[in-house]
Amino acid sequence: MNIWGAAERLGISAERLERMLGRIVRTNDWPEPRLMRFDKAVSGIEAGTVVFDDGDIVYGYPKIRRAMMLAPAIKRHFSGGLLVEEKMNGHNVRVARAGGRTVALTRGGFICPYSTEVAEGQIPSEIFDDNPGIVLCGEMVGPKNPYVPKDVYSAEAMDFVLFDISRKGKRDMEGSKAAHAIAEEYGVRSVRLFGSFGIEEAADEIREIVEDLGSRGREGVVIKDPENLLSPVKYTSSESNCRDLEFAFRYYNDYGQDFFFSRVVREGFQAAEWSDAAAEFEARCLRLGRSMLRPMRETVEAKIAGDEIVQEAEILVRDLQTAVDFEEHYRRMGVRAIFEPPRAARGGFLVKIKRLVLSTNDKTGSVIQGQLW
Amino acid sequence: MNIWGAAERLGISAERLERMLGRIVRTNDWPEPRLMRFDKAVSGIEAGTVVFDDGDIVYGYPKIRRAMMLAPAIKRHFSGGLLVEEKMNGHNVRVARAGGRTVALTRGGFICPYSTEVAEGQIPSEIFDDNPGIVLCGEMVGPKNPYVPKDVYSAEAMDFVLFDISRKGKRDMEGSKAAHAIAEEYGVRSVRLFGSFGIEEAADEIREIVEDLGSRGREGVVIKDPENLLSPVKYTSSESNCRDLEFAFRYYNDYGQDFFFSRVVREGFQAAEWSDAAAEFEARCLRLGRSMLRPMRETVEAKIAGDEIVQEAEILVRDLQTAVDFEEHYRRMGVRAIFEPPRAARGGFLVKIKRLVLSTNDKTGSVIQGQLW
Repeated sequence: MNIWGAAERLGISAERLERMLGRIVRTNDWPEPRLMRFDKAVSGIEAGTVVFDDGDIVYGYPKIRRAMMLAPAIKRHFSGGLLVEEKMNGHNVRVARAGGRTVALTRGGFICPYSTEVAEGQIPSEIFDDNPGIVLCGEMVGPKNPYVPKDVYSAEAMDFVLFDISRKGKRDMEGSKAAHAIAEEYGVRSVRLFGSFGIEEAADEIREIVEDLGSRGREGVVIKDPENLLSPVKYTSSESNCRDLEFAFRYYNDYGQDFFFSRVVREGFQAAEWSDAAAEFEARCLRLGRSMLRPMRETVEAKIAGDEIVQEAEILVRDLQTAVDFEEHYRRMGVRAIFEPPRAARGGFLVKIKRLVLSTNDKTGSVIQGQLW
Repeated sequence: MNIWGAAERLGISAERLERMLGRIVRTNDWPEPRLMRFDKAVSGIEAGTVVFDDGDIVYGYPKIRRAMMLAPAIKRHFSGGLLVEEKMNGHNVRVARAGGRTVALTRGGFICPYSTEVAEGQIPSEIFDDNPGIVLCGEMVGPKNPYVPKDVYSAEAMDFVLFDISRKGKRDMEGSKAAHAIAEEYGVRSVRLFGSFGIEEAADEIREIVEDLGSRGREGVVIKDPENLLSPVKYTSSESNCRDLEFAFRYYNDYGQDFFFSRVVREGFQAAEWSDAAAEFEARCLRLGRSMLRPMRETVEAKIAGDEIVQEAEILVRDLQTAVDFEEHYRRMGVRAIFEPPRAARGGFLVKIKRLVLSTNDKTGSVIQGQLW
């Protein structure tokens, strides 16, 4: 790999990039093509930024900041008007052509073999023939998403849903309009656009949208500047916050405490902003409490019954090699998981994955045997 | 201060103690008498251990570990039988005679002027005349406790409640029986002893005691070995866990996230162990959710209404100098608080204390002005 060329295109000195190698910047030889990956953000370079062997750069997808209180955040952050799109609940990928083939990069800059197979199947290759430098930023969602399995989308297995586009070598996103135009032109699935709103009416409109999304098990919205000059802002439903907690508390000792805390705090601000009436507030409190205690209680009871606590997911692969590669991908990411033998199914092969949650197993096991805290 | 003598009595080398000075071991010149204080635990010396200028050592009160699941913890930890005492909810002090006067040491090894005044008033000095080396370990509880104000005890202001005794220069506690004997002999208030139970029946009995305590706003129990050979174990009620959360979420950004997490986890284990029926479980979930959301919502609403978020407490001092000294004590501990002018009251002077919760004020203030997370 040409360090000097890469450094120049990244806008940093070659000496600095060399010093980062092996610590902040890692080299991945597998799967093809070979790439350098920024493990952490450094001076203007997002974490997850990738430099392919041929010198092409795909910048990391920038973190979207969160509104904790909708109305003041909108007034402070936007001007004129705004667009509201659905925020999908899956994993973020950037799809680009690299080394002559379509690859799907995870947030961290790994090529995910399973996401890549899905992207290859769902994104017409003409899009890359016509726009060789294009980077399609989207969410992989559906029940067969191994990272975030969700039944609430129309996806049968895992679908790619476009929400923005970028270009190789460019840090900036081209925004909602450009993304929807590309999606329409090439028949690529894209996120739902709820519409465009004025600043004054936006908070009320978004509240309605988010409450409706929440009641249907969906996550929330991303609010965007129609002119794509300001960075987007996200906002999520109470039900989504609670569903996150419900998932995480099943594996309570394997998640960071900030994961729990941040979601409770979101609920507190939402209850205050939306001035929950007594009954609504009661329902919110119950939902929150239950989203933590029910899964945790089930975990403890399962462990008492002698069951191992595992995080189960399933993938649907067209090609058996993809399952093999995905297992290797997990291994390289340090995820400990057991892959069951593939079963033939409509559309390919189903593979059940049992991810080990060691810390929760150990902690629960020792507490039910009387260990003190 | 004689470092060599102190080191020898502590059982460490003088060189080691000298290296600790200013980092792990701090010198306090105020209030009298002068002392060295272990800020952190080191090889066999508890945090909060104090060496007075005259060479007397008062060891730190050992941390009592917590049962997360009562029945297995009891079976694993105790043998033969056990004693159950009430765990009071206040702050832990060690009261001893030092430099010719009675002093109350906080957990961290500071002489607290307010706790000292209370101890002087409530503990007959004969106890120290007759037992010069005695260290009285107890809880300061009541509505005028500035650290943990609680209305649920019979205390009018702040009461000292004895739960164990130790001796200067000794690391070990003398246990429940010795403590209650001293309390009776000298007319010192002591913690309630619920009784002595066999290992098999204990978990059910303690559950009943803890549920009853919880329903009356009390904290929980400490389980002790009747022979004082095994270290005690604590266990708390759901209501107490939730009241902790209720207090802390009012100042949500000034508390550690482990404070929140640990209390939720306790609830999860208790729900599993006690096999909550549907309605009880619902009530527990609601209680938990509400204990987090209600105070946080009130904080946000207060801030929107333009109020400053402060943690209010009040002390009742006999001597005005005690209030002045307590203010200095807070200052030295790094607590930022505003002391209002004293008002004459039955038994002395009432002083309102407003402790600033800067982080919660800042965070809430910026979020209601639209700052993103």
